[in-house]
Amino acid sequence: MHLAEYLFRRIHQLGIESVFGVPGDFNLTCIDYVDTCGLNWVGNVNELNAGYAADGYARIRGISVIATTLGVGELSAINAIAGSSAELVPVIHIVGYPSTTAMDKGDLLHHTLADRDFGRFAKMSEQISSAVVILKDKSTASKRIDETITECYRSSKPVYIGFPMDLVQAEVDPSPLERPLVLEEPASNPMAVEEHVVHMVLDRILRAQNPIIIVDSLGGKPQVLKSTRSLVAKSGLPCFIMPMAKGIADESLINYRGVYAERISEPGVFEQVQLSDLILVIGPRPTDLNTAGFRTDMPHIETIKFGRDTVEMRGQEVASLEMSGVLTKLSDALEGRMSPFNSSASTPARKVSVTSERDNSDSSASSPSKGGIYWGHALDIHGGILDKSSPLTQEWVWQRISTWLEEDDIIAADVGTSLFGTTWTRYPRGALLLSQYLWCSIGYAVGAAVGAAIAAREDEQKSNAFRRRTILLTGDGSLQMTAQEVSTMVRRNLPIIMFVVNNEGYTVERMVHGEDQEYNDIQPWDYKLLPTVFQAAPDTVRTYDVRTRAELDMLLVDPQFGPAENFDEKNPAPLRLVELHMPKDDAPVSLRGIIDAITSRK
Amino acid sequence: MHLAEYLFRRIHQLGIESVFGVPGDFNLTCIDYVDTCGLNWVGNVNELNAGYAADGYARIRGISVIATTLGVGELSAINAIAGSSAELVPVIHIVGYPSTTAMDKGDLLHHTLADRDFGRFAKMSEQISSAVVILKDKSTASKRIDETITECYRSSKPVYIGFPMDLVQAEVDPSPLERPLVLEEPASNPMAVEEHVVHMVLDRILRAQNPIIIVDSLGGKPQVLKSTRSLVAKSGLPCFIMPMAKGIADESLINYRGVYAERISEPGVFEQVQLSDLILVIGPRPTDLNTAGFRTDMPHIETIKFGRDTVEMRGQEVASLEMSGVLTKLSDALEGRMSPFNSSASTPARKVSVTSERDNSDSSASSPSKGGIYWGHALDIHGGILDKSSPLTQEWVWQRISTWLEEDDIIAADVGTSLFGTTWTRYPRGALLLSQYLWCSIGYAVGAAVGAAIAAREDEQKSNAFRRRTILLTGDGSLQMTAQEVSTMVRRNLPIIMFVVNNEGYTVERMVHGEDQEYNDIQPWDYKLLPTVFQAAPDTVRTYDVRTRAELDMLLVDPQFGPAENFDEKNPAPLRLVELHMPKDDAPVSLRGIIDAITSRK
Repeated sequence: MHLAEYLFRRIHQLGIESVFGVPGDFNLTCIDYVDTCGLNWVGNVNELNAGYAADGYARIRGISVIATTLGVGELSAINAIAGSSAELVPVIHIVGYPSTTAMDKGDLLHHTLADRDFGRFAKMSEQISSAVVILKDKSTASKRIDETITECYRSSKPVYIGFPMDLVQAEVDPSPLERPLVLEEPASNPMAVEEHVVHMVLDRILRAQNPIIIVDSLGGKPQVLKSTRSLVAKSGLPCFIMPMAKGIADESLINYRGVYAERISEPGVFEQVQLSDLILVIGPRPTDLNTAGFRTDMPHIETIKFGRDTVEMRGQEVASLEMSGVLTKLSDALEGRMSPFNSSASTPARKVSVTSERDNSDSSASSPSKGGIYWGHALDIHGGILDKSSPLTQEWVWQRISTWLEEDDIIAADVGTSLFGTTWTRYPRGALLLSQYLWCSIGYAVGAAVGAAIAAREDEQKSNAFRRRTILLTGDGSLQMTAQEVSTMVRRNLPIIMFVVNNEGYTVERMVHGEDQEYNDIQPWDYKLLPTVFQAAPDTVRTYDVRTRAELDMLLVDPQFGPAENFDEKNPAPLRLVELHMPKDDAPVSLRGIIDAITSRK
Repeated sequence: MHLAEYLFRRIHQLGIESVFGVPGDFNLTCIDYVDTCGLNWVGNVNELNAGYAADGYARIRGISVIATTLGVGELSAINAIAGSSAELVPVIHIVGYPSTTAMDKGDLLHHTLADRDFGRFAKMSEQISSAVVILKDKSTASKRIDETITECYRSSKPVYIGFPMDLVQAEVDPSPLERPLVLEEPASNPMAVEEHVVHMVLDRILRAQNPIIIVDSLGGKPQVLKSTRSLVAKSGLPCFIMPMAKGIADESLINYRGVYAERISEPGVFEQVQLSDLILVIGPRPTDLNTAGFRTDMPHIETIKFGRDTVEMRGQEVASLEMSGVLTKLSDALEGRMSPFNSSASTPARKVSVTSERDNSDSSASSPSKGGIYWGHALDIHGGILDKSSPLTQEWVWQRISTWLEEDDIIAADVGTSLFGTTWTRYPRGALLLSQYLWCSIGYAVGAAVGAAIAAREDEQKSNAFRRRTILLTGDGSLQMTAQEVSTMVRRNLPIIMFVVNNEGYTVERMVHGEDQEYNDIQPWDYKLLPTVFQAAPDTVRTYDVRTRAELDMLLVDPQFGPAENFDEKNPAPLRLVELHMPKDDAPVSLRGIIDAITSRK
């Protein structure tokens, strides 16, 4: 079997069905095997976008692949790969290299610095990858491929495989393919230690008056997601999430309470957390934007933190234990013993209405009431909510869109007003948010939506029933960065629903510094014309211009617009692009709060 | 004076008037000083495009600046910066960093991997930069800025300056600004050695029967360009250029003979070079695409090579000497001693008609006649040249466009059919080609054209008369990579003339491998609609659809279309976008030849 076939058969075994990337002269023969091995070539418009798409796909499928060419290709993608590294998303980056003969001879080849050094770009990727290998020896190449892929999954970070052209057809033993890779690390927690720790934690919980759970982003990594959700559901303890953990917890549960971010928590949340006497933090990732500028720790409240490999009580590490084992045992131990109402600090969660727009005539039903500490200072943010002729505001739009969401929706949001707006709303069960709270690269969500929509369609084709929508929330400045990827939506018939905030530039930057500086302005575009440039057939795309609350409301209740169940093979869902015209100085109160917190710190 | 003001005043002293880049939260306060210091903020649509634009600007102005933000910004630009490194273009990359306080504390900040390591991205840039500095100590910061900028110029490669936010307003001594930086290295060639070498070389030339000059790309670097041109002009020796040196020599000179690339030389050139008995190579850069796959060396002919710092005779280094000194002395020694006709190997150059389209009714006048060795094998490439109703072919289009070029035009060409097509044509005096024969990143020319057009306009505003056109030659696959930068052309009113080859995908890749593979296809776009998406005012843009030779001919002779002299302040030149519909399997014979040479090698 040819080495390239070995590689792509392995990839196919992982459940991957699509390969992202751009062809280049050093990877052409290699990507011939994509098709051969039953995989689909997506063909992104450029490599940065391909990297974002691979990230989005991996967040649905668990792992993904991008193929680029030496130098020009890989370096164009490297910001996206760095984002996957920061956000802990496993992406296999396959880079086409010249032949080993040409490299050994030190040929002055194009796509290099003409200095006979073929290791430079791999060294650059080392800074952002958990493993980097350039295949050289065909006798060990398939083993190194297996090791690198396994490392990718286990570290949940990108890996880099340099594939020289002359190894593409190198003959290798196919027999290792008979045994699928063992991706999950074997359970390694010493039983006695695990039981001891679970017992200790359980003891603290049972003795506490108001124990609560705060879920953070590491609780949502593929290896632990199930046990995190299980703990939240089985324990029944009041559950809060950090912003970066949006989408991990089931927000329709009665014990779900909302986003915690110190003074910019959802209304009422800060007070509930303050009144607790024991906090279980699942998978903490205390980065600046996730912690309202490092303000969310509560040193005066007893806290138990479950990290990926450690359990920490009162600031001390008490054991080295892999998270999912501990959480699973703890959920089992807690099941049926707690009630969401036994904690006096907790108040019953508002009923979240998970409805489609057909029976949702009053969008204000699920808007949070006033009373949040930060919210209390905001002027009139929920005022006029019933006045549908009034212009769109950030606070209203994201709440309104959240009530329109369906179960299992995939929401890709670009960092900016979209992400901060949507995080502080309530999601229906199973809704998943793709975002970059840490890496914060604008334009990410456009590519990520492409990857996610492809993964969702693959799932749909397998189950033949399950329709999962992909919704893109982005801003004008973000969309401009990666606008050509809308072409891939058109080319691959991806029925993404795009909401584009047109608010005349980099609003987040205006709030940080230089509100009226010209550098925060952008060229105004006619975004709705993009699908026409990309030659979308008329029946495959619909565009909308929305300026008032009434217009958005009418659109969201239109059965021809949103509901997944109203589309099928005979009436396929189109690409939908909604341009939301909003004031340039408006921002969600959560975003204002976080920027205030961070800039006041410096 | 604030440190940021010091930086941008230094930059202004270099003759730089515009700063490329994208704002980000770690560079906002820094770029406030762009305006303060009398510089213009360009505001590109994304960082990759900004990097390409900075490269294009530097090729006109001698040096340039791009400003990005930590991580997301700098890594998005890094492919363009690597291109400048490969192609030896001096670009100063200013990267906004968090405050030194936050970095010293090890805060888990956004735009990082949240691992408290703030040096990762600088390490990545080390691989492609001649100097990397992160400013930390305000007492030495201005000195380090000066050193780094000097290094940028002298190495003719990118440098990296990390600028922490809390140093933006650090008070520094402004007095060093009173002395401009000494960028040129002081002449260091030992007089006696230099004279000895010039004497030896002169001796060889005078004893040769058919001495010739081959100019290569390092002969075009800013420090040596003048002496290279002087040698070509004063010596009168038959002069050839390597493909990568396109635009360095004055092609209107009577001793200019054409592009040498072994068997894919311009017609007649290979024979002339074969018949010479002494070759002077000025600034060799023997990369694969520049040498038809390492085939251009002539070991059987005596060769003297002038490198940046060395002189090599018969394969042996005879001295370490800086090139421009030697070339200048040699030109003076040769002046008036040679005649372009004293070399029996040389034939008089064809008269190149440098005309505007008004008096150029027969475009075939300057087309090369048949007879080139490689050309001889090509089928009917010049056939039908007078049949104007026939469809466009690659060979015809680039020859036709070259006869329409004006003196001092700037031509930015994307690697692909455009670049290989235009290189093998004749340019009028002063015409300059911006290209990436080594780095070969498609989409480059779109950004480079933006940078070049800005530099050209600055020159025009200073001289108030000199109008220099910027012409972009690109392909569909290339344009898609960086299409949003057309928005910057619209926003900044850049009257670029764009020729876009619409030939249904990656034609170069098809020729390398996978002619009919779907991965070499792209989504067809309506390219002419792009300026409308970017909301260009109707009178600021014109678009054209061209399918036949007659149509292109008519367009190129239209006085309303091309001639710089027909536009002025009252009738400002618009952005012009010409879509050239061409067959997907057609390519210039030079490109076919180079691909044959390279792929047969492997």
